[in-house]
Amino acid sequence: MAKKKILKVIPLGGLHEIGKNLTAIEYGDIGILIDCGIAFPDENMLGVDLVIPDYSYIVKNKDKFKALVLTHGHEDHIGGIPYLMKECAIPVFGTKLTIGLVKFKLKEHNLLSKVALNQVNAGDTLKFGDVMVEFIHTNHSIADSVAIAIHTPEGIILHTGDFKIDTTPVSGNMIDLARFGELGKKGVTLLLSESTNAERPGYTQSERSVGKALNDIFISNPKKRIIIATFASNVHRVQQIIDASVRYNRKVAVSGRSMENIVQVAQELGYMKIPKGTLIDIDNIKNYNNEHLTIITTGSQGEPMSGLHRMAFSAHRKVELNSNDLVVLSANPIPGNEKLVSTVVNELFKRGCSVVYDNLADVHVSGHACREELKIILALTKPKFFMPIHGEYKHLIHHKNLAMEVGIPEDRIFILQLGNVLTVSKSQAKPAGSVPAGKVFVAGLSVGDVGNIVLRDRKHLSQDGLIVIVVSLSSQNNQVLSGPDIISRGFVYMRESEELMEETRLVATEALESLLQRNVTDWSTLKNEMRNAVSDFLYKKIKRSPMILPIIMEV
Amino acid sequence: MAKKKILKVIPLGGLHEIGKNLTAIEYGDIGILIDCGIAFPDENMLGVDLVIPDYSYIVKNKDKFKALVLTHGHEDHIGGIPYLMKECAIPVFGTKLTIGLVKFKLKEHNLLSKVALNQVNAGDTLKFGDVMVEFIHTNHSIADSVAIAIHTPEGIILHTGDFKIDTTPVSGNMIDLARFGELGKKGVTLLLSESTNAERPGYTQSERSVGKALNDIFISNPKKRIIIATFASNVHRVQQIIDASVRYNRKVAVSGRSMENIVQVAQELGYMKIPKGTLIDIDNIKNYNNEHLTIITTGSQGEPMSGLHRMAFSAHRKVELNSNDLVVLSANPIPGNEKLVSTVVNELFKRGCSVVYDNLADVHVSGHACREELKIILALTKPKFFMPIHGEYKHLIHHKNLAMEVGIPEDRIFILQLGNVLTVSKSQAKPAGSVPAGKVFVAGLSVGDVGNIVLRDRKHLSQDGLIVIVVSLSSQNNQVLSGPDIISRGFVYMRESEELMEETRLVATEALESLLQRNVTDWSTLKNEMRNAVSDFLYKKIKRSPMILPIIMEV
Repeated sequence: MAKKKILKVIPLGGLHEIGKNLTAIEYGDIGILIDCGIAFPDENMLGVDLVIPDYSYIVKNKDKFKALVLTHGHEDHIGGIPYLMKECAIPVFGTKLTIGLVKFKLKEHNLLSKVALNQVNAGDTLKFGDVMVEFIHTNHSIADSVAIAIHTPEGIILHTGDFKIDTTPVSGNMIDLARFGELGKKGVTLLLSESTNAERPGYTQSERSVGKALNDIFISNPKKRIIIATFASNVHRVQQIIDASVRYNRKVAVSGRSMENIVQVAQELGYMKIPKGTLIDIDNIKNYNNEHLTIITTGSQGEPMSGLHRMAFSAHRKVELNSNDLVVLSANPIPGNEKLVSTVVNELFKRGCSVVYDNLADVHVSGHACREELKIILALTKPKFFMPIHGEYKHLIHHKNLAMEVGIPEDRIFILQLGNVLTVSKSQAKPAGSVPAGKVFVAGLSVGDVGNIVLRDRKHLSQDGLIVIVVSLSSQNNQVLSGPDIISRGFVYMRESEELMEETRLVATEALESLLQRNVTDWSTLKNEMRNAVSDFLYKKIKRSPMILPIIMEV
Repeated sequence: MAKKKILKVIPLGGLHEIGKNLTAIEYGDIGILIDCGIAFPDENMLGVDLVIPDYSYIVKNKDKFKALVLTHGHEDHIGGIPYLMKECAIPVFGTKLTIGLVKFKLKEHNLLSKVALNQVNAGDTLKFGDVMVEFIHTNHSIADSVAIAIHTPEGIILHTGDFKIDTTPVSGNMIDLARFGELGKKGVTLLLSESTNAERPGYTQSERSVGKALNDIFISNPKKRIIIATFASNVHRVQQIIDASVRYNRKVAVSGRSMENIVQVAQELGYMKIPKGTLIDIDNIKNYNNEHLTIITTGSQGEPMSGLHRMAFSAHRKVELNSNDLVVLSANPIPGNEKLVSTVVNELFKRGCSVVYDNLADVHVSGHACREELKIILALTKPKFFMPIHGEYKHLIHHKNLAMEVGIPEDRIFILQLGNVLTVSKSQAKPAGSVPAGKVFVAGLSVGDVGNIVLRDRKHLSQDGLIVIVVSLSSQNNQVLSGPDIISRGFVYMRESEELMEETRLVATEALESLLQRNVTDWSTLKNEMRNAVSDFLYKKIKRSPMILPIIMEV
């Protein structure tokens, strides 16, 4: 008798955090991955460039995974693809813009030839054994986003991706609520729905409303050069800025690598319509008057290397700001970026610019569903079981509470941990162990060789700096041939603290000599005692605890 | 003929930033200081505990400064007093609660006997030569706040301190708008007004409205233990929490050192009325049922060592949270603290608590005036000249724009830099050079020995860690006796990167030997070349730039 096939859902990333979304869905020996994102490091991940999920479970089971299906082209959903594909090349499926962005990314990593990229349309289905994958049109802050329905003999698993309900999108249709409703009637076994805005009441405004606000800004500032910072990937936002520019007879220049890339990809694929002669090279802006210029730039989050940051700090080689400029930040700060954004706004004011940002004007709308929209999806799909995903823990709890308001019993709602396995059937869902999962740090070219010990050391070094104690001992008789010498970095001004450093040297010398006199010659004891003596001395003296690194040279 | 006396205003702290407020006002040889605060370090000030202003100008002119007058008892207005007083003891004047808090602070620093503390009441005046200092009652998020009017032969300089207009304060009277109006009629030469909420439209709600919201929370959660985090110094907020607790028959325990201190000081001075038997020791909470308990705690900003943080992370020795607890964060995150607060909220949800915070309920109001209130002060005082203070640069600009709306010409509004001197007469105000001013870092027990070079090294160490190259050379013939050895910290996992470290050692060895063969023996050249060789190698190999510290031991 054939072994009964089991349907499993395993979140491998992006559960209690923003970023690095990755979900495995398995039925028997068929596995489907949904999204493959990165996260950006938080303030404790010193020197880390990116965070990716631990792929070891996927790599170990690589023959099982037939497809990586993508909901949309944001970094937290596609950024991990090069890192996963280096370890195991799984065929990738996504809509046109998403695949276009993945292609660009793989080219940069020299991986294009290694990966099978497959373009699908919303409405398409794919079949893998007795599993069928369906792509459903949604709205989001990037074009061409989809939800994913996985049809299995145990019913339908529906994954919303990131979405909002936009009844008047800038281009294309409203999210395919009808299909969500049909699936609800057929019977959705498990809904996985994103939770980003589960704290926010009401509805998210239509992207089109930003166009109106931008239009007003263009009308009221006919003489100024207008600089607008927004998310590069928000193709519709960029389109609306271009439309307003064309309407008021302005040329458009683009600043920032990711903005240039997206404008290129989106134009090539037909997602952006720019009348000929509108785009000009940033090198040529000097040939146009302020009133005939719009500059679209990266840096709406205040990122230190972005176009807007460089402009604000007078470090942009092509754009110098002054009181004839109006700068619009068409974005809200992502949690954690508030201070970066404030710093840039302050600098812009110091340059004399007019600045329009977040609460002062309606120049941004979210790409995520607010509470009433989340309830509509819950009510339309009437899932038997529900798993809130994609949010901090508080968002998942608020989403859970919403689901209970809509009538889903608490014991059918699952808030999992990364790597937890949920087995699902038409009648039952329950946690069943876990697989390896977690964070892997990318720093420079290396993946995974910065871990918690390294970060702990960096944190320690960053707080009170470093003291090196170095001493040369004779290999014959353990006599001190030179030192101990003291070198410090990031501790105190050496020049102004000569006395302190000399006292420190004496403390280390005493500790060492007292041991050698007692014929203690074990190096690790010598090092430990010098470290402890110096550490105690410095803490008593100035209440600080630098990292202390004793080094013994054998000569 | 006597030299003409000149009236000068010099902001020495707290101008384009939140914190470390300090303003010097001088007329001839009479100097008055207003406030003496600290700032908390930003994310770039690694390992710094506090930031204080550079006091060197005051110390150099200490005979001139007759008084330090205080507007209120918040840390950003009084926290620097011990550090200034260690350098020069200037008589201090403030209202009762403010002086009570300063006394507490000086006691901790063993400075109480050194400093003359003088208690005044709102309405009082002090005379120093031909300068008169007047204290004017205001409203703020701490009791006993005042504005300061400095009367001079060149007219009145009015400094608002931090304020709001609260028509229904929890205790005491509304801000003395009548006196602001009288001064306006007499003629205010220069107004210095705080700008914290210059971005926010309308009016700030009364503190009393929080009492209503808290009351609703107590009514709707009769069975739960209620834990409320707020700013320790908000005496009226704490009083309202105690009132609600008494009303619903709950005992109150207090957690967190600063909360304990304030409750003690405020009670002693009569600023808090707590019925006998209401306060219980936190050790005794186990003797009461949840429904009979309120815990007031520090940590509303998510601060890592605070009471609430320890509760959230199950590290509090007295309070263990669970699903029978309701936690209220009665505060909004201060800019920059958003993520800390989110982290704590997420942990509280993980403990199973109900959590009420910022936008979910009206459990907090600001202590600062919004735009309409700022306009009222501008309109009442009708200053000849205006200097917006106390805010980021963007707030100062918004406040400037408000003043222009109210009718003050742009050329009479001054946004200064720290240390800039503004000379003021009844007919004219103009910038006139500057005095030394800036930031001084306090770390552990030492003041000023952490500076920009130290911070730059810490930043470097925190990003990519450290590589030490150590080698012993013979003092006779410069032969290598031992090494080069490579030690790293905070760079990569040593164990998993043995090969990389061995390659690094070879690169250093080659660089060294090639120099020695060419008879180069200058140590700084040897060190530089080893550093450069290793640095180039590591950047090419893994795109990272650790700090490289070459050490030569002479044996």
